[in-house]
Amino acid sequence: MLVQGEIITIGNELTSGMTLDVNGWYAAGRLTASGLRITRITSVGDDYPSVSRALKNAMEGSRFVIVTGGLGSTEDDLTNEIISKALHRPLCLDKEMFEIIKRHTSTQGAEMCRSLEKMAWVPDGSRMLSPEGKACGFSLVENDVRLYFLPGVPDQMRYLIDHVVIPELRTLYKRLPVTICRTLKVYGLNEPHIAEIFRDLDKETDKVVLGFYPHFPENHITVSLTAKDARSGVHELDRIEKQIRNKLGAAVFATGEDSMAEIVGKILSAKKFTVSVAESCTGGLIGHLLTAIPGSSRYFLGGIVSYSNDAKMELLGVQAKTLEEYGAVSNETVQEMAEGIRNRLNSDLGIAVSGIAGPEGGTREKPVGTVHVALASAEKTVSKGYRFWGNRQAVKLNSATMALDWIRRYANGNPLLPGI
Amino acid sequence: MLVQGEIITIGNELTSGMTLDVNGWYAAGRLTASGLRITRITSVGDDYPSVSRALKNAMEGSRFVIVTGGLGSTEDDLTNEIISKALHRPLCLDKEMFEIIKRHTSTQGAEMCRSLEKMAWVPDGSRMLSPEGKACGFSLVENDVRLYFLPGVPDQMRYLIDHVVIPELRTLYKRLPVTICRTLKVYGLNEPHIAEIFRDLDKETDKVVLGFYPHFPENHITVSLTAKDARSGVHELDRIEKQIRNKLGAAVFATGEDSMAEIVGKILSAKKFTVSVAESCTGGLIGHLLTAIPGSSRYFLGGIVSYSNDAKMELLGVQAKTLEEYGAVSNETVQEMAEGIRNRLNSDLGIAVSGIAGPEGGTREKPVGTVHVALASAEKTVSKGYRFWGNRQAVKLNSATMALDWIRRYANGNPLLPGI
Repeated sequence: MLVQGEIITIGNELTSGMTLDVNGWYAAGRLTASGLRITRITSVGDDYPSVSRALKNAMEGSRFVIVTGGLGSTEDDLTNEIISKALHRPLCLDKEMFEIIKRHTSTQGAEMCRSLEKMAWVPDGSRMLSPEGKACGFSLVENDVRLYFLPGVPDQMRYLIDHVVIPELRTLYKRLPVTICRTLKVYGLNEPHIAEIFRDLDKETDKVVLGFYPHFPENHITVSLTAKDARSGVHELDRIEKQIRNKLGAAVFATGEDSMAEIVGKILSAKKFTVSVAESCTGGLIGHLLTAIPGSSRYFLGGIVSYSNDAKMELLGVQAKTLEEYGAVSNETVQEMAEGIRNRLNSDLGIAVSGIAGPEGGTREKPVGTVHVALASAEKTVSKGYRFWGNRQAVKLNSATMALDWIRRYANGNPLLPGI
Repeated sequence: MLVQGEIITIGNELTSGMTLDVNGWYAAGRLTASGLRITRITSVGDDYPSVSRALKNAMEGSRFVIVTGGLGSTEDDLTNEIISKALHRPLCLDKEMFEIIKRHTSTQGAEMCRSLEKMAWVPDGSRMLSPEGKACGFSLVENDVRLYFLPGVPDQMRYLIDHVVIPELRTLYKRLPVTICRTLKVYGLNEPHIAEIFRDLDKETDKVVLGFYPHFPENHITVSLTAKDARSGVHELDRIEKQIRNKLGAAVFATGEDSMAEIVGKILSAKKFTVSVAESCTGGLIGHLLTAIPGSSRYFLGGIVSYSNDAKMELLGVQAKTLEEYGAVSNETVQEMAEGIRNRLNSDLGIAVSGIAGPEGGTREKPVGTVHVALASAEKTVSKGYRFWGNRQAVKLNSATMALDWIRRYANGNPLLPGI
């Protein structure tokens, strides 16, 4: 039997649809991964009837309730007062919390004031949550239900969930089963193809749960299971991962948190390859993705965004004849772009993309979504055309991801994805 | 008195934190904008106890409840059965819905099967929702509460919210006040500065609600109000917008949905200016943001991502002496970068950014977050240094937004934001 709890997120900006409830999502994911079961996530406005009703509803049948939001210093931060009233616990000054707020305020060069002091007045019987004097929140136990009140500021909330709430709950409920989850990231296979592995996989169905989550243009497969102990769980995960990789091959580009750009960076670092990019329809996105990774200056030398034909000729040395004869979106042009950037920057690899992102610019032969990719190395230059679906944003993202996938596959010695 | 309702979103992927509840957010935003009040958004798993309890809780004090998810054909789609049991209404075959599903299935070249037929068995007394034979869902009235059951597929859910639910509720509650909302987007002012306008604004407090939403690196101010009719509401919004603009000046860069890149595109198109970019720490992000806008090829000619010093010299003509004497992150270097790209692409404006995005590379004189921006025009070249806070991603995004803001302010004749 899993230990059940609920999450309540407070804020008028949530119930009015102004803001997405990212806090509830984060807390649910982390608590679930820790072997706890979340039965409900509730968002309510900053008012007494809504919050007290939600708290009452949530406490029925729960062992713990996480409440986020409304702990700040502004006028609409009312959680402390609402909880005090709802649970008939008068507000008391927590001197330790008061000192922490005072210290923090003075390091910021500001003065302590009533609205800041308000944050230290918490319902009677509360225990402050403030590991390393960082973030403030409080906890109390009511009718055997453990209640956690956390700030709505995402960084603070996440810190307290990971460093206080989860360790406490796991200490409290020692016999929690070990729940482990692994994500396999896939690029370049369509859904029906991936669905096959769900059918054929040799798994103990009562323990292993497979999930399928499209993260355009990638697809993520999650494998989660509960086990007696971590060792046997990891062993089973390894077995299933191996099966999936056998079926999907090089389409699985990462396990865990790594992004495509991180994987590409690791491979380029390991092989000591440098890369440069020539972008047309992606407009700089490939460079942006590559340079999102700390330390990317070790392998990424630079790039050229040749949006106009003039820029392709002027900056990359693409020949006027090639553009005339084959057009800007063609194998011939991207090959010259890839060779041009590689020569100009003296990189091991040069990658180039040219395509029609839309909504305008498509023709019958080359509709919106037609994209050509080329990769130049000392050895040779290869190119292919693709046809992507979706709007301008989708075509740009798919094109940039395909370019990164080409670098990954080339450096790993895997075959490139087939084109049109 | 506003008409109150609740939203329930169903799915284990929501309570396990696998998926963000975008449906609840969308429905809440649209219903709020239509003058209805959402008091609670609840996410629960696909099981009888959770759904029936959430429905019971939601119906207390509500005039309507929107339920999304669990209407599909797979095994874990249980909403119809759960609602049937919870409300003691036996499942009946809706023949019209059956025909729609059958027709849709055959156009897809598939055969009707039991799991598809299941979708047409709905609780007794339900009315099908299927405008133009497109998306299926159903509605029923229980204890004077109007219940809407919508698919969890975002496109279908959104279609039904906009084309069925909201028009029906507005017809039902004829005297709904008109609620209108306007968003003002601000860049370059810190929170305390903006907080001032909340204090000083001359507003009728009972009708006008101001909201403040950080959207890094921008800040968004929302002004919402309820009015007798649209005309008087818009008049009041105009009055308040004018006050805010008087206080914040050119820091307000957009009203409504437009992004900074869209605003820049509109200004460049109107003034018939072309632009090119030379990027270092932003790695291509400025080009990516500019080219996210359809039709950007009319004003964006291209760019160079000069990540290494060699690339700065080789591709942009920055002098070795400048790099040696002042460093890559300096007014002198960005000026040469801006002039270099402008000359190479013959654009009206050349914009350049060079900085230290971190986590490595900072020094005492030039810590992580130090970023220089330059803009070259036929008239002259200007440059400034900034110091941004945050991690690598934050520094990149703030730098790229600052570059776009420079283009906007230059083209509009506004002063540039002060630097360090």
